[in-house]
Amino acid sequence: MTVRRTRDVLADGRELFYFDDTEPFVSGAATRVVPDTRPLGPAGVAGERRRDPLTGDWVVLAAHRMDRTFLPPADECPLCPSGRGSVPSEVPSAEYDVVVFENRFPSLSTRVPDDVPALVDGEALWPSAAADGRCEVVCFTSDHDGTFGNLTPTRARTVIDAWADRTADLSALTGVAQVFCFENRGAEIGVTLAHPHGQIYAYPFVAPRTERLLQLAAGHRAGGGGDLVGDVLAAERRAGARVVLAGEHWTAYVPAAARWPVEVHLTPHRHVPDLAALDDAERDELAVVYLELVRRLDRFHGDPSAPVRLPYVAGWHQAPVGQGRDLVRLQLQVTSVLRAPGKLKYLAGSESGMGAFINDTTPERIAARLREVAA
Amino acid sequence: MTVRRTRDVLADGRELFYFDDTEPFVSGAATRVVPDTRPLGPAGVAGERRRDPLTGDWVVLAAHRMDRTFLPPADECPLCPSGRGSVPSEVPSAEYDVVVFENRFPSLSTRVPDDVPALVDGEALWPSAAADGRCEVVCFTSDHDGTFGNLTPTRARTVIDAWADRTADLSALTGVAQVFCFENRGAEIGVTLAHPHGQIYAYPFVAPRTERLLQLAAGHRAGGGGDLVGDVLAAERRAGARVVLAGEHWTAYVPAAARWPVEVHLTPHRHVPDLAALDDAERDELAVVYLELVRRLDRFHGDPSAPVRLPYVAGWHQAPVGQGRDLVRLQLQVTSVLRAPGKLKYLAGSESGMGAFINDTTPERIAARLREVAA
Repeated sequence: MTVRRTRDVLADGRELFYFDDTEPFVSGAATRVVPDTRPLGPAGVAGERRRDPLTGDWVVLAAHRMDRTFLPPADECPLCPSGRGSVPSEVPSAEYDVVVFENRFPSLSTRVPDDVPALVDGEALWPSAAADGRCEVVCFTSDHDGTFGNLTPTRARTVIDAWADRTADLSALTGVAQVFCFENRGAEIGVTLAHPHGQIYAYPFVAPRTERLLQLAAGHRAGGGGDLVGDVLAAERRAGARVVLAGEHWTAYVPAAARWPVEVHLTPHRHVPDLAALDDAERDELAVVYLELVRRLDRFHGDPSAPVRLPYVAGWHQAPVGQGRDLVRLQLQVTSVLRAPGKLKYLAGSESGMGAFINDTTPERIAARLREVAA
Repeated sequence: MTVRRTRDVLADGRELFYFDDTEPFVSGAATRVVPDTRPLGPAGVAGERRRDPLTGDWVVLAAHRMDRTFLPPADECPLCPSGRGSVPSEVPSAEYDVVVFENRFPSLSTRVPDDVPALVDGEALWPSAAADGRCEVVCFTSDHDGTFGNLTPTRARTVIDAWADRTADLSALTGVAQVFCFENRGAEIGVTLAHPHGQIYAYPFVAPRTERLLQLAAGHRAGGGGDLVGDVLAAERRAGARVVLAGEHWTAYVPAAARWPVEVHLTPHRHVPDLAALDDAERDELAVVYLELVRRLDRFHGDPSAPVRLPYVAGWHQAPVGQGRDLVRLQLQVTSVLRAPGKLKYLAGSESGMGAFINDTTPERIAARLREVAA
């Protein structure tokens, strides 16, 4: 399979990349509507980030995002190809396979103001910096009403290549410490655009969850263990009770200490730090395995003939850019807040205040259900 | 003020405590309907907890809670005094001021099964134990339609005394590592009972957020600092920009790295590890200050004449039972997911997957609004 990448630039200077997987390639020059000449204001500038002294975590302040597009009507969808709706979209082409572009309302941006002080109010307890980094949008298909689960394996494979490409590019940007590719799906978790898409955040810091994983993985290795995620994978494969599906290169399982009413991890058998490091065979199998997994998720609360569209967060945990490459293995984590049709799991006092999760089910039940709904 | 505590026992053996603040005391023997003789099944037994090897956190599995009471009609409210509705409630008295009892559907319980293995599937990576501890419910008032903000200062002070009493008692239970008093308010965050109430969790482990705070506070002191929370309070008082209100014993401020669209911390000026350690003057002022604060929260998105009931989590961070008593200062954290009327902040990919919070506002704006809506 050949994927052709074509770069374009939007009216406000943001970058866009088409990933076309089928000849004759649909996007790029041949189908380009016009250069994007929308009268956009300047591209989003970085806000501020501040370190919370009580948790050690960086918190991003992005007050400008209050104005972002919120559930537009379908004929004003900014992610459809231009020319299809009543207004020009973010994609100046009449068709595309997969497209990635810089978010117009970014939480993190390479466009950095020069007036962010190094400390809030001059206090050493509060380090501060520009919210530098980059946020990109990944459109999985030009079909407004599609879903990731309805992609062909070829198209899913193109999405994987796009993630890998962007991970490599963004990792090379000055100041980027970690790249996170993810999909939020469902109005239940606040998704404001219905068009099937994911996002990529290039963080200027190692994310809190990964910071903790680095500590634990280093301790595990110092204690004579292997790479921690790989050892957990091996234990799940030995135990078997929570394995959902297994291929030659990937295994999906519900983690032994699952904290969400639906949670599944998908882990490669080989130690790779990120998506860019996957070889062709691993990418090919991933496309098939991932599609099977998300299709089963829609049957979790329904059945094959009457699926219940599951809201979920699917996030790729990748090793940080410059450290822990041999400690942190690539891993997909899919979680859902839907504990029953119409009933959500909320993060209330124990979870949001104290970080102590209560799960009203067991990992073994989740896994049994995900095996039961195999095609 | 004299608060009389009276102990009772429910039909399934659970403990209940009345806290009466006004003579002649309304609850207890005089107004007791009957001994509670509801045909309840056995009191809730502890589920299991497992340690997540990738985060180090204990996760509680409470599959039996799936059956808990979910938004009952008002005349079947289990938190109203018995005799008021169509079925006997959890409170076998015709009236009460403040009452606390063991949760009928507990996430954590002192009633511990003896068949929980020490490891999941015999794997050293997955420590396991019974979800021991205790969960209690705190009814702030017998008025089904009331709110904490509508309590008199006397009644609010009684709630504070009840929290302090329960913190002391639960801290003395074998195996309890930390006590967390909190109020979840609003259907938006999953509250399943409308009657004004809070909860208390007595955890068998130090909660993840506090574990992290202990590390940071120890590092801060080792580096020549004082107690970390106290030093943050001093910095907020020096800066002033985020201070919401200040009394003789307490200051409320929006933290410099607030991660929620509405967030405020309320911290005592004296170093105390928990609610039980507050003296009378501190408790008296707390009642007044806390009431003022929650009343302002309802004006955050509205105004004094047309308040918008704010969903919130109000949680008391207390020092663990047996450690860090001089490192962790008592602190109330109130947060809300309501970023505008009808618009919620969701924890999506960045927050729930990576622990990296994006806040679409600034702490200074939140504080300015909370000052603006002073009575």
